Amino acid sequence: MLNLTSLPNIPLVQPGDDLSELIWQAAHSAQIELQDGDILAITSKIVSKAEGRSVHLSQVEPSGRAYELAVLSDKDPRLVELILRESREVLRVRPGTIIVEHRLGFVCANAGIDHSNVHAQSAGDPVEQTEGWLLLLPADPDASAWAICQGLQARSGKRLGVLVVDSHGRAWRLGTVGVAIGLAGLPGLVDLRGEPDLFGFRLRITQVGAADELAGAASLLMGQAAEGTPVVHVRGFPYPLRAASLSELLRPKEQDMFR
Amino acid sequence: MLNLTSLPNIPLVQPGDDLSELIWQAAHSAQIELQDGDILAITSKIVSKAEGRSVHLSQVEPSGRAYELAVLSDKDPRLVELILRESREVLRVRPGTIIVEHRLGFVCANAGIDHSNVHAQSAGDPVEQTEGWLLLLPADPDASAWAICQGLQARSGKRLGVLVVDSHGRAWRLGTVGVAIGLAGLPGLVDLRGEPDLFGFRLRITQVGAADELAGAASLLMGQAAEGTPVVHVRGFPYPLRAASLSELLRPKEQDMFR
Repeated sequence: MLNLTSLPNIPLVQPGDDLSELIWQAAHSAQIELQDGDILAITSKIVSKAEGRSVHLSQVEPSGRAYELAVLSDKDPRLVELILRESREVLRVRPGTIIVEHRLGFVCANAGIDHSNVHAQSAGDPVEQTEGWLLLLPADPDASAWAICQGLQARSGKRLGVLVVDSHGRAWRLGTVGVAIGLAGLPGLVDLRGEPDLFGFRLRITQVGAADELAGAASLLMGQAAEGTPVVHVRGFPYPLRAASLSELLRPKEQDMFR
Repeated sequence: MLNLTSLPNIPLVQPGDDLSELIWQAAHSAQIELQDGDILAITSKIVSKAEGRSVHLSQVEPSGRAYELAVLSDKDPRLVELILRESREVLRVRPGTIIVEHRLGFVCANAGIDHSNVHAQSAGDPVEQTEGWLLLLPADPDASAWAICQGLQARSGKRLGVLVVDSHGRAWRLGTVGVAIGLAGLPGLVDLRGEPDLFGFRLRITQVGAADELAGAASLLMGQAAEGTPVVHVRGFPYPLRAASLSELLRPKEQDMFR
């Protein structure tokens, strides 16, 4: 049985907040007692906020290349400048979308830079007063996950995993899905190669993107809209916990047929 | 709360089996009483088996094009012939892999043709006696899902959803993940466009591939290896059930930047 529960009572996160403490308190108030093998899935947005990764467009000076891509993508050149700074390589440009290899190694749209929920003045402020703030992805989501995991393990005395989740679009299919962009304590890939199936065949497909499957599941509960449930508690993940990093989920560029 | 439970006691599926009856019995024996809003996620493999979609290589006569691609892909020309028959278009060919647009509209490797768990003679038969059998994807997984959904709704009197799940590789990332290849009664995409976020912004990202997120979650419990748990009961899917089809998850070819 796999059980996912949104933690209520996560407050609006501010720069400098200790997420492991906020999550620990929220789990406590939800009467969830952490157990060995539990995983906390956390939207990248609150990790970024805690790390002070918001930027106001007025602080950004676009480069010449940003101006060029701004025309092709029909985007604000300052936003494009931020996308370029957060990226290793631009793969595709279309009106509305710039697909990049993010500096963290994954391929995503607009370098994962988020417009929404960034700047809390007060709920209900008109858009005009809050726009212009953008939220970059965490500087090092594996390290963020590790720090939160350490904090929660120290408080609970249990062996835990932490998954930092972002929503990405995909080649070929519509709709965003939650994917792992940082992880600590749980496997990204699970290798089933060589295990026999029911009839003694060796399985051939067989590296399972388990952390991404879990990220998708958690994302279902994270509520992109008004509810705001940025942390999901997971019990019953079917694979053993172990040390891991995002890199195991990233297809090496030279093996990628779709760049 | 989102809760996923593998149904134990699904027998080895044979051609002609009524999956809605097998699932109904298995839910009963697991003391799961179906409720309005519950979803059954089913691996495509048992849907194919029930529908008699296994083919022996000796029955296949390769075309000239299959021989050509067999050389490029280092695959048996008879397997390649089946891949071509199941596909609309070949997108990439590399040793070991042929990426196609499947006749069902999605992009996947090797037309989803599966080697493992196909031919039940008796458990433990050596590979030599069972190889040569291949399992094609269901002829019409939306229709399969609909029939199973109807059967379970008639038995239970509840409003249910059914998801047919396959494991696909992805551009850019390693590891397979469960995705929807057929659905009935639950949304494929959930459109959050225009809903305000916490601070009154209009959300911009916003079509969520909810059925794929759920397929990934269910896939975690399906056990690709010896356990064999082909059906997962889902309670707590956070979006309203509605009529749907796979087509809503497929990116129109002309909008696809990565073909």
